[in-house]
Amino acid sequence: MSKKNNQDKLLVFALGGVGEIGKNMYVVQYNDDIVVVDAGLKFPEEDMLGIDIVIPDVGYLVENKDKVRGIIITHGHEDHIGGLSYVLKSLNVPVYATKLTLGLIDVKLKEAGILGDTKRILISADSEIQLGTITASFFKTNHSIPDSVGVCLDTPEGTIVHTGDFKFDHTPVNDQFADLQRIAAIGSKGVLALLSDSTNAERPGYTPSESNVGNELEDIFRKSTQRVVVATFASNVHRIQQVINASIATRRKIAVVGRSMVNVVTIASELGYLNIPEGMIIEPEEVNRMTADRVVILCTGSQGEPMSALTRMARSTHRKVDILPGDTVIIAATPIPGNERYVGRTVDELFRLGAHVIYGPGSVSGVHVSGHGSQEELKLMLNLVKPKYFIPIHGEYRMLRLHAGLGEEVGIAPENIFVLDNGDTVEFQGGQAARGPKVQAGRVLIDGLGVGDVGNIVLRDRKLLSQDGILVVVVTLSKADGTILSGPDIISRGFVYVRESEGLLDEANRIVTSTLTKLMNDKVNEWASLKTNVKDSLGRFLYEQTRRRPMILPIIMEV
Amino acid sequence: MSKKNNQDKLLVFALGGVGEIGKNMYVVQYNDDIVVVDAGLKFPEEDMLGIDIVIPDVGYLVENKDKVRGIIITHGHEDHIGGLSYVLKSLNVPVYATKLTLGLIDVKLKEAGILGDTKRILISADSEIQLGTITASFFKTNHSIPDSVGVCLDTPEGTIVHTGDFKFDHTPVNDQFADLQRIAAIGSKGVLALLSDSTNAERPGYTPSESNVGNELEDIFRKSTQRVVVATFASNVHRIQQVINASIATRRKIAVVGRSMVNVVTIASELGYLNIPEGMIIEPEEVNRMTADRVVILCTGSQGEPMSALTRMARSTHRKVDILPGDTVIIAATPIPGNERYVGRTVDELFRLGAHVIYGPGSVSGVHVSGHGSQEELKLMLNLVKPKYFIPIHGEYRMLRLHAGLGEEVGIAPENIFVLDNGDTVEFQGGQAARGPKVQAGRVLIDGLGVGDVGNIVLRDRKLLSQDGILVVVVTLSKADGTILSGPDIISRGFVYVRESEGLLDEANRIVTSTLTKLMNDKVNEWASLKTNVKDSLGRFLYEQTRRRPMILPIIMEV
Repeated sequence: MSKKNNQDKLLVFALGGVGEIGKNMYVVQYNDDIVVVDAGLKFPEEDMLGIDIVIPDVGYLVENKDKVRGIIITHGHEDHIGGLSYVLKSLNVPVYATKLTLGLIDVKLKEAGILGDTKRILISADSEIQLGTITASFFKTNHSIPDSVGVCLDTPEGTIVHTGDFKFDHTPVNDQFADLQRIAAIGSKGVLALLSDSTNAERPGYTPSESNVGNELEDIFRKSTQRVVVATFASNVHRIQQVINASIATRRKIAVVGRSMVNVVTIASELGYLNIPEGMIIEPEEVNRMTADRVVILCTGSQGEPMSALTRMARSTHRKVDILPGDTVIIAATPIPGNERYVGRTVDELFRLGAHVIYGPGSVSGVHVSGHGSQEELKLMLNLVKPKYFIPIHGEYRMLRLHAGLGEEVGIAPENIFVLDNGDTVEFQGGQAARGPKVQAGRVLIDGLGVGDVGNIVLRDRKLLSQDGILVVVVTLSKADGTILSGPDIISRGFVYVRESEGLLDEANRIVTSTLTKLMNDKVNEWASLKTNVKDSLGRFLYEQTRRRPMILPIIMEV
Repeated sequence: MSKKNNQDKLLVFALGGVGEIGKNMYVVQYNDDIVVVDAGLKFPEEDMLGIDIVIPDVGYLVENKDKVRGIIITHGHEDHIGGLSYVLKSLNVPVYATKLTLGLIDVKLKEAGILGDTKRILISADSEIQLGTITASFFKTNHSIPDSVGVCLDTPEGTIVHTGDFKFDHTPVNDQFADLQRIAAIGSKGVLALLSDSTNAERPGYTPSESNVGNELEDIFRKSTQRVVVATFASNVHRIQQVINASIATRRKIAVVGRSMVNVVTIASELGYLNIPEGMIIEPEEVNRMTADRVVILCTGSQGEPMSALTRMARSTHRKVDILPGDTVIIAATPIPGNERYVGRTVDELFRLGAHVIYGPGSVSGVHVSGHGSQEELKLMLNLVKPKYFIPIHGEYRMLRLHAGLGEEVGIAPENIFVLDNGDTVEFQGGQAARGPKVQAGRVLIDGLGVGDVGNIVLRDRKLLSQDGILVVVVTLSKADGTILSGPDIISRGFVYVRESEGLLDEANRIVTSTLTKLMNDKVNEWASLKTNVKDSLGRFLYEQTRRRPMILPIIMEV
């Protein structure tokens, strides 16, 4: 450990991922050395109309570009890697990740055209890397994607542990155990602060083992006398392995359907994360030639996504695979909040085709378990690491608070627990922690190629337009004497069905004309007041008639 | 029973409420006598932008106006009464309902200005009413609102039983038991067809009793050393009674907050559905003067509705009531699908204020139970009624199918079970049932004062506008020679933040000008092709630059 002086300071904060689910990004800074953990995206909330994805504002990192030693990625889920290609464009620093994670990152960097320009460094759970004065080491965790790790950052001020996403699975698939011994060893050396996953802090008890799902799948495969279709997250490689295992046990072959499922199966088997016996995989085209009870179809679409394989099959619009009456369809996932209706519709369609559908919460269906630890596992992590300070991360505010409560239960002093918002900092000096000044943090909205060009004004307009549509009022005035040369013309979109509302629009036209004529007579001719008057009188009329408030856009041309 | 001949026919169908949740409306027709059961609304789905509510298309009933003998309402929930005031405007027929239900209906009819014009007939569970050749009688059920009934319709062709919404609660609040004896008696006389509630057909087992909630509430009230806030559905009168009971037991007074909660407490206690001891209710203004552990605040907002009492308290914008650190807030409801995020945000805000919040699914929180029966209760209803034919109602297609499966399990022949879509009919003749011709059915969208004037075209435009906004392109041409006199001007809304995109919009302007100039030179001057060309060239340019597809609205003025 290097020598310390009074100015030395350790700073810990989040740029994303506290008070929200997604766009995870955590920062540990010791003096002039900054280490970033994760660079995720988040899917838009329902009021972010037209937005594709949301990433963290990395203004602080860009300002301190020269200090950033690297970005460590804990695992390959979108909420941890999805912002990376955007961040790297303004911040070209090395990226550290384990094998499968790096494989998934490479796909993204390639798409963004920056694979060649990015320094990517492969780590394993046994690596130790030096990032300026900070030493990073790792520990294996259990999660719904292989190769996930937690991060241990040794700084001259003390050790910071970041769990990544985790659960404790005592009977994991492919014997990929969480490294309890290493976590305990880290704890026994003394940990200054723990940053721990709060995603399931609302759930009492333990999250069941992934291998429970395997047993259930095999049962269903065996009982089904026809084809079995399994939809799950493409990234859930262990789940896919269990579909393979259950297929082997029940002498079925597997057709893989859906672009991201094909991609992951390819990458994961190339990198050795999937054991697929020779001859196990068949082409989707072969499905119809096989005996029904010898076939499994593994596909995307567990969230009812409109363009996904399962949704197309359910609507009988898939080019290669039909659902036949008597087929069993297993949806091995829980709907992400907001997707419930999509999943519901897909299930409805499947029932209409005569399929037997197994769906619903994992506790009912038996074919899904969460990848995040429940309350007892969160306490276990706290007790293994035995930190002096505790910062719950990964979660909405209520989850962070509940996790903080668990911290108190296991004996951490309430004043040593920090529930943060993005940009809130905790400063560590001489073994003591206190809240520091806030740093720049926020959200950047991505819409098409636009990064951050859609802000509150644009969103407010989209919201208005979505509710009651728009009326455009155009009129051409004479430059010479201000008289109306053409119009007013009223064009509406999204307001009323025009053919059935001619009377209303004619009357609206008369109101605009008389408003303008009156203003002309009163010698009012500034455009601003003409426009305001048209807006007001027309808006009032339409509200009286329809109780709607469309956007009104007056346009004055002058000739 | 009147004599039958070969032409006599009994018809059963739904105009709303099968293959969907909400806008319930069921029709039983024997020759020239039509009886309607329920007239509900449904809240808009996420793709129905700007729509307030959805009601059934009653075209069939309006066409057969002279045959409609009346509308029977099973209970006072919006999905059963909310469409009534719209339906009655085109179909002025008598309405039959029990006391509390009629009280809630009256509020709606008054708002719609048709209370005086509507024949409203009070029934009790013991009433028997003659509707042409059809005799209606009733039976008490358990549900999350008092005074709910099932309907028994005796026709010359046989008896049709409609359960309404129901559960079986063996320890109901205020001793309001479901009438097992009467249901059994109806069954023993022989029932032609049962229409039964499928809302919870996905849930195994039994739905817990409402009185479980009462015990839990009393525990929480007793343990809390400060104020307790309880948010629940205003219509859940039994839940409200239990809040009152728990308050009495723990020597707390109750302040009622939120317009609909105040309304329901007033109506329900006037009509005798709530027992509130003298002096129990205090004004919201008094809350701050009372000792904290002597107060309960009963309020609306259990769905996180933006303008509701609880949401305002959570945001510290309520005029009368603040949440103080240490207060206990109980959200005694499960979020309706689509409301999860609103509820989550409210809970977050409450945690930020330092409140202790009890929320989540009833199985975790203990302070909520469903009002609908689970699978075992659905089987019990089937076995009590012992129908020859079975038509599952109230539910998405998958729920109807699962309920049909339960019907098969208890011994109903699969060919005697009809899973319908709205408008599908079942014809009964000589004790035999078969599918009949489809009748007109569908949805009518209400937007402000507009009933049905927003259709697919308007919705599609709103969707487009909400995604990428709109660009209006205006140009004034000379009538004489077709030259550009003014413009092109481009005005955008909801597309990009204009101040930061001047370059893009300038370039867009140049593209429109050059497109128009080229067309002029080529002597193309039909407006249609001018518009199409502007749309295409501008659309292409914007997509290349931004990967967005705003609506483009070209407007040509001529002077």
